[in-house]
Amino acid sequence: MILEETSVAIVGLGLMGGSLGMALRSARTCGEVVGVARRAETAALAVELGAVDRATTELTAVAEADIVILATPVRTIVELLPRVGRLARAGSLVMDLGSTKAPIVRAMTSLPEYLQPIGGHPMCGKETSGLEAAEPGLYQDRVFVLTPLARTDDWAMALARELVKAIGARPLALGPHRHDRLVAATSHLSYLMACGLVLAADQLAQADQSLWTLAASGFRDTSRLAASDVTVMSDILLTNQEPVIEALQACTSQLRRLAALVEAGDEEGLRDALTAGRERRRSVFP
Amino acid sequence: MILEETSVAIVGLGLMGGSLGMALRSARTCGEVVGVARRAETAALAVELGAVDRATTELTAVAEADIVILATPVRTIVELLPRVGRLARAGSLVMDLGSTKAPIVRAMTSLPEYLQPIGGHPMCGKETSGLEAAEPGLYQDRVFVLTPLARTDDWAMALARELVKAIGARPLALGPHRHDRLVAATSHLSYLMACGLVLAADQLAQADQSLWTLAASGFRDTSRLAASDVTVMSDILLTNQEPVIEALQACTSQLRRLAALVEAGDEEGLRDALTAGRERRRSVFP
Repeated sequence: MILEETSVAIVGLGLMGGSLGMALRSARTCGEVVGVARRAETAALAVELGAVDRATTELTAVAEADIVILATPVRTIVELLPRVGRLARAGSLVMDLGSTKAPIVRAMTSLPEYLQPIGGHPMCGKETSGLEAAEPGLYQDRVFVLTPLARTDDWAMALARELVKAIGARPLALGPHRHDRLVAATSHLSYLMACGLVLAADQLAQADQSLWTLAASGFRDTSRLAASDVTVMSDILLTNQEPVIEALQACTSQLRRLAALVEAGDEEGLRDALTAGRERRRSVFP
Repeated sequence: MILEETSVAIVGLGLMGGSLGMALRSARTCGEVVGVARRAETAALAVELGAVDRATTELTAVAEADIVILATPVRTIVELLPRVGRLARAGSLVMDLGSTKAPIVRAMTSLPEYLQPIGGHPMCGKETSGLEAAEPGLYQDRVFVLTPLARTDDWAMALARELVKAIGARPLALGPHRHDRLVAATSHLSYLMACGLVLAADQLAQADQSLWTLAASGFRDTSRLAASDVTVMSDILLTNQEPVIEALQACTSQLRRLAALVEAGDEEGLRDALTAGRERRRSVFP
């Protein structure tokens, strides 16, 4: 299959699906991009914004596609997969953009043998959601995790890699459970830290509302992710429970250690811990 | 005293002191800005960068100033205050830019009666430190907390407010203990959250170094403050122990609540908690 001649169907035209359509179209990556939205207004807007060549509210549109990409919340992807399995034509790729991979890859194992399933997760996003926030550059230079199944053919995986590169992203093959543990410690934990910070400040502000007047750029950046879409994020957390709880426990134990050092006035110990954090942060984001 | 005719001495020419000098000079706020640095190279660089009119390594320079502003870490301010008290001339203002106010205001009570002490804390900063990072716009539109003592004269407080407004900041009078509790819950807690996140991710990365490949913009922003200067931050935490520990406890208890909701798969409860955080974040930073 030649990527330039393929028809791609994107199911779910929010921030991620809309941005993918824009990126595919602006790079002239494939033959046609068809969008499938739940609501007719979203379908119309996607065409208007140039996110897709044409759009529909009918899932049956996936039957005409060579590559089907599900871009809805994780649990909706899991629900949609059996229906997509019945509709998609033999030899087509079935991919997704869901943020957790274990439940999706599990559901993909039940797809008909004549389909080529590959899980996907691009490491990008914004705290604003919806098609209105979509942009063609969203995937540029970002890591795009691919989780092929044991049965996935090499040619299908090569085509998926080609698509990922065509939108400017960097493909990285990972097993689903490994992926889920890693993103729990990076993105899901970051989100929960931001929420914990806002909820704690809100609790302390009950006694003194002037608190918010003093919230400066440090608080703003650290809490940015707390503004994320709640439907998307609760879906992610509830489909990755064990790794999320493990990451949260690691973090609360680190916070307790820092609190003990502050309480003891242990300057050397505190400096050592803060320096380790600083050095690591600077090595990851120089 | 007329602000335009005053001589201002800034003791400590790092990010905060250097930026203050630049802001005062670019707005032509006062007659002269004299810098006092520990090292001769810093003094020379401050003149070169236009942060001060002239600079010295001698603290005795404060004797010629109408307004003395201490811009070193908190505990250095507390150490310097008795020496500044012996040197400063009668009727001059003694101010500071320290991030915690209770220990500084306590030390200010021992200053000679003929001086006018006013604590200060501008709500701004950067994770890069040092004079090289200084910029004249650092204080623009930021809240600048002022903590006058009971003995501080009205004319002195009016002059301090005028100086704050002249550099583009917004003066806000607050008691020192109240200030310290509020910044513990906003900036100090934000910093500790960022450190806890990096240290937890580092701990989990011991088992799988690929973790850092997946750290995207969410992790980057939430962990930004972990790159802050360790000397500055440990100084702040150790001069604000009780409020910092109280804020940390509020936050770990919120994180435990979120973990329990995820573990129980309580979607409604989780959505309610995340929505409360989201709404609050969006009301503070629309």
